[in-house]
Amino acid sequence: MSSHFGQIFQLSTFGESHGAGLGVIIDGMPAGIDLDTDWIQKDLDRRRPGTSKWVSQRKESDQVQILSGVANGKTLGSPIALAVFNKDARSKDYSDIAHLFRPGHADYTYFKKYGLKLQPGGGRSSGRETLARVAAGAVAKALLQPLDIEIQAYTLSIGDISAEFIDPEYAETHPLRCADPDKADEMLALVDRVRNDGNSIGGVIQLVAKNVPPGWGEPVFHKLDAMLAMAMISIGAVKGIEFGAGFSAAQMTGSEHNDQITPNGFDSNNAGGILGGISNGDSIIMQMAIKPTPSISISQATIDTNGNPEMITIKGRHDPCICSRICPVAEAMAAIVLADAFLLNKRQVLQ
Amino acid sequence: MSSHFGQIFQLSTFGESHGAGLGVIIDGMPAGIDLDTDWIQKDLDRRRPGTSKWVSQRKESDQVQILSGVANGKTLGSPIALAVFNKDARSKDYSDIAHLFRPGHADYTYFKKYGLKLQPGGGRSSGRETLARVAAGAVAKALLQPLDIEIQAYTLSIGDISAEFIDPEYAETHPLRCADPDKADEMLALVDRVRNDGNSIGGVIQLVAKNVPPGWGEPVFHKLDAMLAMAMISIGAVKGIEFGAGFSAAQMTGSEHNDQITPNGFDSNNAGGILGGISNGDSIIMQMAIKPTPSISISQATIDTNGNPEMITIKGRHDPCICSRICPVAEAMAAIVLADAFLLNKRQVLQ
Amino acid sequence: MSSHFGQIFQLSTFGESHGAGLGVIIDGMPAGIDLDTDWIQKDLDRRRPGTSKWVSQRKESDQVQILSGVANGKTLGSPIALAVFNKDARSKDYSDIAHLFRPGHADYTYFKKYGLKLQPGGGRSSGRETLARVAAGAVAKALLQPLDIEIQAYTLSIGDISAEFIDPEYAETHPLRCADPDKADEMLALVDRVRNDGNSIGGVIQLVAKNVPPGWGEPVFHKLDAMLAMAMISIGAVKGIEFGAGFSAAQMTGSEHNDQITPNGFDSNNAGGILGGISNGDSIIMQMAIKPTPSISISQATIDTNGNPEMITIKGRHDPCICSRICPVAEAMAAIVLADAFLLNKRQVLQ
Amino acid sequence: MSSHFGQIFQLSTFGESHGAGLGVIIDGMPAGIDLDTDWIQKDLDRRRPGTSKWVSQRKESDQVQILSGVANGKTLGSPIALAVFNKDARSKDYSDIAHLFRPGHADYTYFKKYGLKLQPGGGRSSGRETLARVAAGAVAKALLQPLDIEIQAYTLSIGDISAEFIDPEYAETHPLRCADPDKADEMLALVDRVRNDGNSIGGVIQLVAKNVPPGWGEPVFHKLDAMLAMAMISIGAVKGIEFGAGFSAAQMTGSEHNDQITPNGFDSNNAGGILGGISNGDSIIMQMAIKPTPSISISQATIDTNGNPEMITIKGRHDPCICSRICPVAEAMAAIVLADAFLLNKRQVLQ
Repeated sequence: MSSHFGQIFQLSTFGESHGAGLGVIIDGMPAGIDLDTDWIQKDLDRRRPGTSKWVSQRKESDQVQILSGVANGKTLGSPIALAVFNKDARSKDYSDIAHLFRPGHADYTYFKKYGLKLQPGGGRSSGRETLARVAAGAVAKALLQPLDIEIQAYTLSIGDISAEFIDPEYAETHPLRCADPDKADEMLALVDRVRNDGNSIGGVIQLVAKNVPPGWGEPVFHKLDAMLAMAMISIGAVKGIEFGAGFSAAQMTGSEHNDQITPNGFDSNNAGGILGGISNGDSIIMQMAIKPTPSISISQATIDTNGNPEMITIKGRHDPCICSRICPVAEAMAAIVLADAFLLNKRQVLQ
Repeated sequence: MSSHFGQIFQLSTFGESHGAGLGVIIDGMPAGIDLDTDWIQKDLDRRRPGTSKWVSQRKESDQVQILSGVANGKTLGSPIALAVFNKDARSKDYSDIAHLFRPGHADYTYFKKYGLKLQPGGGRSSGRETLARVAAGAVAKALLQPLDIEIQAYTLSIGDISAEFIDPEYAETHPLRCADPDKADEMLALVDRVRNDGNSIGGVIQLVAKNVPPGWGEPVFHKLDAMLAMAMISIGAVKGIEFGAGFSAAQMTGSEHNDQITPNGFDSNNAGGILGGISNGDSIIMQMAIKPTPSISISQATIDTNGNPEMITIKGRHDPCICSRICPVAEAMAAIVLADAFLLNKRQVLQ
Repeated sequence: MSSHFGQIFQLSTFGESHGAGLGVIIDGMPAGIDLDTDWIQKDLDRRRPGTSKWVSQRKESDQVQILSGVANGKTLGSPIALAVFNKDARSKDYSDIAHLFRPGHADYTYFKKYGLKLQPGGGRSSGRETLARVAAGAVAKALLQPLDIEIQAYTLSIGDISAEFIDPEYAETHPLRCADPDKADEMLALVDRVRNDGNSIGGVIQLVAKNVPPGWGEPVFHKLDAMLAMAMISIGAVKGIEFGAGFSAAQMTGSEHNDQITPNGFDSNNAGGILGGISNGDSIIMQMAIKPTPSISISQATIDTNGNPEMITIKGRHDPCICSRICPVAEAMAAIVLADAFLLNKRQVLQ
Repeated sequence: MSSHFGQIFQLSTFGESHGAGLGVIIDGMPAGIDLDTDWIQKDLDRRRPGTSKWVSQRKESDQVQILSGVANGKTLGSPIALAVFNKDARSKDYSDIAHLFRPGHADYTYFKKYGLKLQPGGGRSSGRETLARVAAGAVAKALLQPLDIEIQAYTLSIGDISAEFIDPEYAETHPLRCADPDKADEMLALVDRVRNDGNSIGGVIQLVAKNVPPGWGEPVFHKLDAMLAMAMISIGAVKGIEFGAGFSAAQMTGSEHNDQITPNGFDSNNAGGILGGISNGDSIIMQMAIKPTPSISISQATIDTNGNPEMITIKGRHDPCICSRICPVAEAMAAIVLADAFLLNKRQVLQ
């Protein structure tokens, strides 16, 4: 239930960070769609740590296996099960702090909810869980690909350094997925600095989905933006989301904010491509606030599982800034929401 | 499906703004809980327009009827059906613009999705739909009340005027639910000005839920903040949401953002009361961006349903600023999400 | 949840037998389908008691109202809310046995589950609940009608009198929906006799759905027969169901039971029109065992809500044989399952 | 969706008979319950073929692996993923009939639904799919075990040989799970005979669940018997189901069928332990019709995927009678339905 998402294009994910493996079943994917391991692996590789010194330097090969639902390079219409088996577990990294609640992590709340011993690496609350999302997102993209839908996320700001110009192609080449070539070095320097301090830093990412046809999204509770909000906020590091003009809309008048309509389309996109919860044919645009990763080596106050005060220092190979690695996860969640909206919409209007 | 929300505490809403009536079925409410019409009506009255010149001056009496699920002032465990029958429909207000897409409204996207003639008043996309949410929220509050959970929303800012001090009790007395007594007159003056211009203005509201026990919310996709985000963004006027430090977290380091833990609790609340998607026992805090209401009497460019360019002027009794009327809707949605989280959590730990 | 059915064509029903009213919300009905009150009322009238001395002689006018989701005789794509308000409640019929568990009724189990005082007429467990099913079934039929799908149920046997010949058109004209003109009078005489004894009698009904295209039904858990079984067994009076050869298959060999295949189709229909949970294009056929109605005026042993032994005699205008009135309910449930299967199948194969 | 079952105790299964493997994710299992591989393997071994000459002699080792959700012998509250990897695929058995629709199998309907080439061994429609059900059932039993609930299924009849006496313990020792020691040899001889003929034979099994507390099951659509009916009919070989007196109830009067109530409980069990869809504290009893396995070596008429008439002879190691191997699958499905009913009931009455 809690690890289940979607109404027609449905996922169920599983796996703890230091268990046997992680994976996902996708139920509801139509039959006859092109899909193979390479297509999925490509997206997993975009999420992988260890690619530069600006992200976590853990080595995780994360090779996906297709266990069911695909034969001869085509989907069968049956559930698609994907698994990645864990190799580089390294639970010794955590052994000396196994009885302490790490500040900013879910250790405390999982303990309060389930009453169990803390799990190494955070178990199910670890960011490693997003691997299953990315795998499922690749399946969603296989469904959306024939429609020419393009989904891309990139870094808008890190700390107080903000992109002033957006070059999506450049972002793909940059280790932090910085969208502005002129700010790229500043961002790298900032992340370097916080990492050397044993600290971390937050940022803002933007996601754009192009070529989504008008009419996707379901009224009232399953509005397209509501489902995207749920999908994005469900990613551990995301603390806020806004669509189109977003929080800026709070300072605008109606005459400034309304996108007027011409025979050639809307003359602005303050709505972020969604009106009344339904896509309007314009690009769907959203920004997400990414919190600084909570695993820092600076000493912090905490308590142990018996309630006694302690100081904690977290060692290991953690991300000084997680923005660039959240981008492929956000893209995957957007693809999953859009795949579901596409299939839902097909039965709303029979013609 | 699209008008369905919740996993255990489940709602199904119905009704168009100019149809016979609106309402909701709540399935999953436990038996034996105190509930009567007065309790629900009290919340509906908080949402009602026509209470001052700063909000829509439509007169809507909105008397709720309990059709099932309650007997002798107690819930029966069976579905609770609530209905409000429409009286003050006034569809003539819309007759001269019935063929035009109102900018900022869902007319265009509903037309593209369903291929039907536009409905007077927006049909299912009208803000009047939120009436069913408020009624269901009152039922949720009946479940949460014995736990001393308090939920309140108020206005933080309108246009560029922001509260600097928060007095929740004062907010309840103010026609715009302004939280800062020192900014109250300025906000009124601003809303007066935009109304006289035939325009509207956006704002930011804050919602706080106190006394939520630790352990509520389900990991991965059904995180408490993810469900709240879906619930809030599904309200038509809400264009953004942030939890705790929210977008400010993007400029913080980990050592600034992490809420350190002492034997007496967390020493700050940047997390907004939720860690890893599970309540941590602190107050749950979120802010929402409210867009300016799209119904303005200033002339705007649009097209008709045949694609021809036209100018449109929207008459009628519309809200110059919707913030104060969104507050009870947001409170209702928060109560609904919390009621579901409460019932879901009961089965996660059997003890 | 418990009063919710379907995945795309979704119902939520409400209402107690002696409350304000009963009804249903149907969410997921596509837009643009012909629908009006008369179409729904026609099916409700087929279920109504009071039509002859062989069924309950309660007078229930049961006039349906469409509260939402339909305008100008067409569905809007929004939730369709239907309500029937109660008039002929007569709870005095029950006042002297209000503290006793009626044998064969759900009084005992509702009391054990909810711990509440018994409700007059059985509350939510009353057969009156099926009214909402019939109303929803009429909406499902509006969706299936353009596909020429025909659904009919009739009485195969009552007590030990069995139809030997099936004439579906005759069944529609007979007060007990007896399918065999030669057995019609015998069945009437038997029902007369048990009614005069203050007793009741069971029977078997058969339902046939013609012209269902091949390919409907979803593998594994949501097989078409599995969903039909859930739908039918959820009707209070139904105690068994079999498809095609059914329990006779238990005595057959594979070579007898397998329907062989020719270029012109299957040469028999032991499968009942469903193979592997998916419709095969043949008529879908099932039989249901209907228990004798438990409300009898013969004295029976029971206990009161404090556990003391008592004798109970149930007065009132009850059905001596419920078969003929279950037929329209079974037809409605079949239509609902097929409507959902139709919409679900649309997304499984994209072509 | 189609491979998804349950509302709180939720399963998603995957896997084709000749693919990489099969398995299941169980979401909603509470934390802190004893569970290990041996417990699950024990049930899988009861389902396994190759144990005697009266069942399929395929050798399938079917070793289960726990991929997530369990640590140190206790459930974690996170999704439990279980997998069995295929070893003895033998798809060559099918190569010469790969273009023919096997009568009585789902080949024809899958082809009509998905438009894909037939899969070796039936792919997702193979009985091998039930392996995932049995694994999930073992997890459900781990939840029910502390409540002393006992679930057992056995063979009541094969062909025209019926048990007249039921000895559940004996049934566990018999290769056909025959419940009557006096009929055991006759049943073996019959199955031997049909196997030598290259034919197969049907039967009836009975399932009893003891010690289910009163109050389980949800009214209206999710009645306990409705969910059991869906669960059982979703097993490929099951063509009919009846509860308690079942089809015999059709010949009874109300005074015969009603279970009268005494201070010591019900004085009969025609209801099969369920009243109004809710358990009444008595044993839950149901019978299921099992069709003869369709894979027979007797020549049958069929068509190829182009519609041309052909004769087909199915070789391989098939079950001459599947009753004994359906028993553990039926037990698993009953456990799954009861686990869900248990968890659902916990939140219906808060006291």
